[in-house]
Amino acid sequence: MKEFIDEHLKVIRDNAVDFISEEELRLKLAESFKQKKPLKIKVGFDPTARDIHLGHTVLLRKLRKIQNLGHIVYFIIGDFTAQIGDPSGRNELRPPLSREEIEDNAKTYTEQAFKILDREKTKIIFNSQWYKDMRASDFILLLSHYTVARMSERDDFSRRIKERKPLTLQEFVYPIIQGYDSVKMEADIEFGGTDQKFNLIVGRHLQESFSQTPQVVITLPLLIGLDGKNKMSKSLGNYVGITENPRSMFGKIMSISDELMMEYFKMLTDADIEEVKSMHPKEAKLYLAQTITAHYHSLSAAQEEREFFENTFSKKKIPSDIPVYASSEDSVDLVNVLYETGIAASRNDARRLLKQGGISTGSSPITEQKFLLKEDETILRIGKRRFLKIKKERR
Amino acid sequence: MKEFIDEHLKVIRDNAVDFISEEELRLKLAESFKQKKPLKIKVGFDPTARDIHLGHTVLLRKLRKIQNLGHIVYFIIGDFTAQIGDPSGRNELRPPLSREEIEDNAKTYTEQAFKILDREKTKIIFNSQWYKDMRASDFILLLSHYTVARMSERDDFSRRIKERKPLTLQEFVYPIIQGYDSVKMEADIEFGGTDQKFNLIVGRHLQESFSQTPQVVITLPLLIGLDGKNKMSKSLGNYVGITENPRSMFGKIMSISDELMMEYFKMLTDADIEEVKSMHPKEAKLYLAQTITAHYHSLSAAQEEREFFENTFSKKKIPSDIPVYASSEDSVDLVNVLYETGIAASRNDARRLLKQGGISTGSSPITEQKFLLKEDETILRIGKRRFLKIKKERR
Repeated sequence: MKEFIDEHLKVIRDNAVDFISEEELRLKLAESFKQKKPLKIKVGFDPTARDIHLGHTVLLRKLRKIQNLGHIVYFIIGDFTAQIGDPSGRNELRPPLSREEIEDNAKTYTEQAFKILDREKTKIIFNSQWYKDMRASDFILLLSHYTVARMSERDDFSRRIKERKPLTLQEFVYPIIQGYDSVKMEADIEFGGTDQKFNLIVGRHLQESFSQTPQVVITLPLLIGLDGKNKMSKSLGNYVGITENPRSMFGKIMSISDELMMEYFKMLTDADIEEVKSMHPKEAKLYLAQTITAHYHSLSAAQEEREFFENTFSKKKIPSDIPVYASSEDSVDLVNVLYETGIAASRNDARRLLKQGGISTGSSPITEQKFLLKEDETILRIGKRRFLKIKKERR
Repeated sequence: MKEFIDEHLKVIRDNAVDFISEEELRLKLAESFKQKKPLKIKVGFDPTARDIHLGHTVLLRKLRKIQNLGHIVYFIIGDFTAQIGDPSGRNELRPPLSREEIEDNAKTYTEQAFKILDREKTKIIFNSQWYKDMRASDFILLLSHYTVARMSERDDFSRRIKERKPLTLQEFVYPIIQGYDSVKMEADIEFGGTDQKFNLIVGRHLQESFSQTPQVVITLPLLIGLDGKNKMSKSLGNYVGITENPRSMFGKIMSISDELMMEYFKMLTDADIEEVKSMHPKEAKLYLAQTITAHYHSLSAAQEEREFFENTFSKKKIPSDIPVYASSEDSVDLVNVLYETGIAASRNDARRLLKQGGISTGSSPITEQKFLLKEDETILRIGKRRFLKIKKERR
C-alpha cells in the first residue's frame, strides 16, 4: 500500500503551488486503495470559455496523469450561474449565456479537452442539475454556512471593497454556489489555478459543514503568456490555442523568451529538464515548438513546420531584391497594400490570403487587415516564396 | 387639494424621527387625491413576537389615524424567513418557527392590534406568498440589485464585522428579503421604529431598481420601558402588555418616573400636553394610568383601579398591626409563606391567589412564587384588605 500511496502522491502533487493537505490526501489514497475505489477529482469549467489554450493544458495534463492511475475526473460546468448573468450591468465579465451558447461552448471545450483527457475516465456534469429546481429558501439556508467576514477575505473581494468598487451581493455569494458543487458531488480533490484557491477552500468548508470529509485542495501555477508578463489568456491575445494551425502554433512558440521557454518545458512537456539545459537555446526552442506542435497535430506536421521556420527565418533566406511599399502613416491596410503592389490579383484575393494565414512576419502569421508599422522596415512573407518590405517614411 | 395634502401630511409625519421625504409624500398624496386611490401603508411584523405592549402601540396608534384618513395598512408578516431559521446556531434570535407557531403568533398579535387598528382598512399578508415558490436563481438575481458595501452600512452589521462577531451571509441578505416585500406589494409608505431605518431604505432602493416610485420611509421613536432606560421590550421585562389586567397595567404605569410620564403622554395618548404640564405630577400620573387603562379595558375598570391604587398606596391606609414573617434567606417561597402564616387555607389556595394577581407589593402584582427580599421589610397586600410584612433577618 505504501508504494501505491507514494506513487499516486508524487503524481498528484507534482507542480502544486497550494496543497491542503498531504496528510489528508494520504488518508484518502489509503482508503481508495483499500476499497478499490477511484478518487473523485473535481475541476470547474467556466462556460463562458470555449477554446483551450496552452494555459489550460497545464491542469489538463496533470489530470490525465491522475486518470492514468485510475481516478475519475469530474468536469463541473457552471452553467447555473452563467445563465443568471448580472442584470445590474455592473459586472461586464458575466453577461448571461443562453442554454444553447453554454452547451455549444461546453461541447467545443470538452472535445478539445479530450485531446488530453481520457474520455472513459471523465464525467461531465452541469451544475444546474442540482440548482435548477432548488428553492430560494434552500439557497438562503445554504448561506447560513458562511460568514461575511470569511467571504470578504477573498483577495479580489477585499480589494474591491477597499477601493470602493461595486461588488454586488450576487457576486459575493457565487463562491458558495461553486463550493456547494463539491458537496453535491462529494469531491475528494479539487484542482484549479492559484487564482482559484479561495473558491476551492470554500468547497472544503462547505463539505465540513455538511459532515463530509473535506476535499483536498491543490492549485497549479498559472502559465505566463507569450508576452512573458501576463497570465496566458484569450482576452490578452498572448495565447496559443490548441486547435491553432501548426504554422501559427510553431511560430508563436518560437517567439517566446529563453526564460519563458524553460517554464514551458516544465509545465507543458515531459522533457528531461537537465537535457534541455544542455542544449543550445535556439535548438531547445525549436525542440519545444516541435514537441508541442507534434502533440496537438502530428510528428510530420511538426517536422514540416520546423523546416519551414528554419528555411524562412533562421537561415536568413530572404532574397535581397524584394519589392518595397512605403507609407508615411502609422498603419497600413494590408488588403490595399497587397493589391496595389500586385502581389494579390484582387482585393478579394488579398483578403483570402490574410484569412488563410498566408501572410506572416517574423514568426507569426498576420490576420488583421490593419497592420501597425512599429518598425522602420518590416518584411512580410506571402505564401512560401514571396516577400514584401514595408518601409515607414518619416513625415 | 392643498388642504387635503396638508392635513394628511400633518397626521402622517407627526412624531416622525426620519422622514424620507416630504416632497415625495406630497406627490404621492396629490396623486392619491386625484385618483381617489388610498395609499398603501406597509408595516412589517416579526412573527416571533406574539403580545403587543405599549411600545408597539406608538406605531399602531399612528397607523389608525392614517386609516381614519382613508388609507390602507398592509401588515406584512415575515413568515418566510421565520420558517428558515439558522441551522448554524450562530444566531440565537432566529430559531426556526413552525407553520403553526407563526400562524398562532400572527393571529394573537393581529387580534391585539385590532384593539387599535381599523379591521376594515387592514390587509394581513404573509410574505411566504411570493417567496415560497421562488427559485434559487430568482433569489440570486435579486441579490444583484445590492452591493456588499451598501449592505455593510447597516449599523449592527458594520459593528459585528468590526468586532469580528460572526455574521452569516444568510443574515446579511435578510434586508433584501424584507425590502423586496415593498416591491411585491408596491408600498407607498413604510413605517417602522428608528431601529428599522436601514431596512426600510433597502425597500426604497429595491423599488427604484424595479422601476417603481420608491416608498416614503418614516421612522417613529422607540418607546422607553418602565425602567426609564431601555427600549420597552418583552425580553427586558420593562413592558406593559395591552392585554394585562387593569390592576397590573395601572400599577406599572404608576411606577414610572415623572420624566418618562411626559414621554408616555406624548406617544401613547392624545392628551393636551400643555394641560398635563399644568397638573400636579402625581395627579398627572394617575390621569395617564387611567387614560391608558381605559383605552385597553374600560372607563369603569380604570376608575376602579384608580380608587384601589389611591386607597392602597397613596393614602397610606396600611394598618399598623399586620402579621410579620421573618426570613434569613435572600428569597422566600410565597406559597409556603402564605400557607404558614395562615393567610391561605392551603398551598393550592396560595397558588391560586398568586396566579390571579391577588398579591401585590408597592404598585405591582406579584405572580412569581419565588420572591426576592431586596428590602429589609416588604409589605404585601393580599386581596383588598389583608396585609403581610416580610422581614429580612440579618444572619
